[in-house]
Amino acid sequence: MQSDARNLSLVMDLYEMTMANGYFSDGLEKMKNVTFDIFYRHNPDGGGFAIFAGLEQVIQLIENFHFSEDDVEYFRSLHLFSDDFLNYLRTYHFHGDVDALPEGTIMYPQEPVLTVTAPMLDAQLLETAILAEVNHQSLIATKTARIVRAAEGRGVSDFGARRAHNMDAAVYGARAAYIGGADGTATVLAGKEFGIPVGGTMAHSWVMYYDNEYEAFKKYAEVYPDNVVLLIDTYDVIHSGLPNAIRTAKEVLEPMGKRLKGVRIDSGDLAYLSKRVRKILDDEGLQDCKIVASNSLDEYTIRSILDQGGRIDSFGVGERLITAKSDPVFGAVYKLVAVQNEDGTWLPRIKVSESVEKITNPGRKTLYRIYNDSGKAISDLIACEGENVDLSKPFRYVDPKEPWRIRHFEDCTAKPLQIPVIRAGKAVHKSPSLKEIKEFVRKQLNDEIWQEEQRFENPHIHFMDMTPAYYEEKMQVLSDSRKGK
Amino acid sequence: MQSDARNLSLVMDLYEMTMANGYFSDGLEKMKNVTFDIFYRHNPDGGGFAIFAGLEQVIQLIENFHFSEDDVEYFRSLHLFSDDFLNYLRTYHFHGDVDALPEGTIMYPQEPVLTVTAPMLDAQLLETAILAEVNHQSLIATKTARIVRAAEGRGVSDFGARRAHNMDAAVYGARAAYIGGADGTATVLAGKEFGIPVGGTMAHSWVMYYDNEYEAFKKYAEVYPDNVVLLIDTYDVIHSGLPNAIRTAKEVLEPMGKRLKGVRIDSGDLAYLSKRVRKILDDEGLQDCKIVASNSLDEYTIRSILDQGGRIDSFGVGERLITAKSDPVFGAVYKLVAVQNEDGTWLPRIKVSESVEKITNPGRKTLYRIYNDSGKAISDLIACEGENVDLSKPFRYVDPKEPWRIRHFEDCTAKPLQIPVIRAGKAVHKSPSLKEIKEFVRKQLNDEIWQEEQRFENPHIHFMDMTPAYYEEKMQVLSDSRKGK
Repeated sequence: MQSDARNLSLVMDLYEMTMANGYFSDGLEKMKNVTFDIFYRHNPDGGGFAIFAGLEQVIQLIENFHFSEDDVEYFRSLHLFSDDFLNYLRTYHFHGDVDALPEGTIMYPQEPVLTVTAPMLDAQLLETAILAEVNHQSLIATKTARIVRAAEGRGVSDFGARRAHNMDAAVYGARAAYIGGADGTATVLAGKEFGIPVGGTMAHSWVMYYDNEYEAFKKYAEVYPDNVVLLIDTYDVIHSGLPNAIRTAKEVLEPMGKRLKGVRIDSGDLAYLSKRVRKILDDEGLQDCKIVASNSLDEYTIRSILDQGGRIDSFGVGERLITAKSDPVFGAVYKLVAVQNEDGTWLPRIKVSESVEKITNPGRKTLYRIYNDSGKAISDLIACEGENVDLSKPFRYVDPKEPWRIRHFEDCTAKPLQIPVIRAGKAVHKSPSLKEIKEFVRKQLNDEIWQEEQRFENPHIHFMDMTPAYYEEKMQVLSDSRKGK
Repeated sequence: MQSDARNLSLVMDLYEMTMANGYFSDGLEKMKNVTFDIFYRHNPDGGGFAIFAGLEQVIQLIENFHFSEDDVEYFRSLHLFSDDFLNYLRTYHFHGDVDALPEGTIMYPQEPVLTVTAPMLDAQLLETAILAEVNHQSLIATKTARIVRAAEGRGVSDFGARRAHNMDAAVYGARAAYIGGADGTATVLAGKEFGIPVGGTMAHSWVMYYDNEYEAFKKYAEVYPDNVVLLIDTYDVIHSGLPNAIRTAKEVLEPMGKRLKGVRIDSGDLAYLSKRVRKILDDEGLQDCKIVASNSLDEYTIRSILDQGGRIDSFGVGERLITAKSDPVFGAVYKLVAVQNEDGTWLPRIKVSESVEKITNPGRKTLYRIYNDSGKAISDLIACEGENVDLSKPFRYVDPKEPWRIRHFEDCTAKPLQIPVIRAGKAVHKSPSLKEIKEFVRKQLNDEIWQEEQRFENPHIHFMDMTPAYYEEKMQVLSDSRKGK
């Protein structure tokens, strides 16, 4: 894998090191174990859910986490750190445990999607790299799922590399797009690294290199007779590109017993042009020739083109997918939720804020997804760690937005969502294949997640409930923290 | 450098390879030389200019461009390419020339900022990787310049790594931010790789790890007495964080003869809180204690906070800088502009489009910046390659938006903007230090570029003029292309 070749441990904020050196200065024997949760606060684009992605790379990052001699010398040059600490870094590796949602899990705001339990120093050092990976891949997977939904079964392919925020964003963005439902990518390195199907035929430059458009099309058809998708908008779709494509189908391909597989339109009004192109192709007996469209597409333009009867068979989606243009920040955060006492018990910690939604869910906890008897996910539930959650009889829960109501789950089942992925610094989870992750996403969206949560406008907000015990604990911690000022 | 460790040649769209194999199939002896220009169409955020960044990495990419045995085997597995072509890839390296604006040059839409002249196969293979690098770094440098402008001389530091679109976006984004005017970054790897000043002190987790806020502050002051910037919003800025910070200044630092360097506020209303905090600090004799603010800042929030009299000394800017949230796509494109005949002459090529602004500027050309006698850049000028541009006397030019007007440059000088960076595949340009690039940007924005072009709202649009000869050539090519259908 590409990431293996690089030491990415220094993709961290400097404060992780200044804090680590501070904790270290107390003595390693005094270092407390802590638990950090990763969670996010808002679904992108006002949607009803997000897709958890990037776990495979997070596990690699943590397993490979180390400092080279070079790194240590760089830290020494900053004149901030003790010699003992710098020496400690030389052989440092991560000592803790990580639990997380399986990659591809549909996730919701405010719930722990990845949990790190480790000595404070260890846990602190992972913050930025994990967040960057999870934020980026979850963002692109979630955006792609929206685009795929808008395409209503038509193909969607990632064409975005050239507008990605540098190389990793192209390659891991293609990975995330595949998880989110894209059929393939144009980005070769993503094909090689992850086995994603790659596609691509010609650019305008191919058409412009040859003396005229027909010659360019003819040449392409001769080299790739089984895979001829011609780009027909270099000069004029209706008056030049399409007639030359049809001539290529009849004069070059048909004599070889081959068919014109498709035409691609990359500019102009895609709804209007695709309808005209479809009609002309059909009239010429080329009903099997597909129409591919590209050019600044996203879920909104695709939906609008299809609403207007656009006759497009597959979409190449570039810049607005690979940058998640309409909402390019996925804001997952990494927050301390518990500190372990010397006697082994855990003290919950809370981050209070002026705004209620920024108040964290304190303490060690277990996250469940609650399913009704037809297998639909009706709610997520936060319980205290180790709390008995028995849904064989009606189970009382608290909706933290309306804590005064008495409510019960009946005829439901509860599935704990996090799984162990790292124990004592070593991976204990083998990532499924990318295809399996993609299929897992598809299955959840088809079978488990309400269609009402998948709407673009004003979707149903998934319920995030708490057990009465967990709710009481949170209120207690909040109240203690206010008194403790 | 980080990029050296990786083979990034496969960050390409598959069509580059299908086309390359097609060109190769004609025989290398028949391969024509071509010229491609990179240009972009719109300034981000409706601004008046952009900053050209990423050239150092582009040169590295091109010099390192090669295919490993692994890569070749991957291509073989796609069953698209001839054996001869796959063999050719084994020893392939780039054979052409590259000219570009010096890194950090202020640039404008529609003008060639990087030009590749090479055999068609070579030129085609570079498209995606160069665009991804230039698009990303130019985007972030340009966004940062806007934020720095809004801060009106106050410090701006990049805090964005955790919300970057993966690792490269964090590291090269920090590089670009520094070029665009940021003072430093929190991202350690960017500090190590590029010598950018790094900064950072503590997260909320530091405050939450210790038994109470004062203990956390005291501990930090003991470890880093010379660099105490305390994060005061974990519980309550006015009633807890600030009093504990002041107590730390008086009870921990003053006895050591040290001063409290700063406090950081990361939530709440930054205008209101900073004014209250400033007043209290001043009343306590801590006039030298700086106030640092962070939390979803960009040029608009910073301007608004300062308009309201916010007392902030420096800004930590994260997600909205590192993703260029308000306009995250920089749309530079790579277009074929000329093909060389067997006799050595060049045939211009044009990409026509339904929309006038998408019609390319054909042919090989020279780009000049025109300065008036007080050193202000009043226009850019496109001339034919080799055309004599002599401004010692009044020089007629054509504004392509108003080609009927007769206009002249008088008392002006013309500077050619592109410089040779690669000749026959080898770098002939040594990149300046990052600090020099940053200073070059600052100097242009201060001395050469009209303030009117730097306005956020409705900025002056830089003139993009043509010599009469170049304008005639473009019109001729356009007309031929229409006839040639």
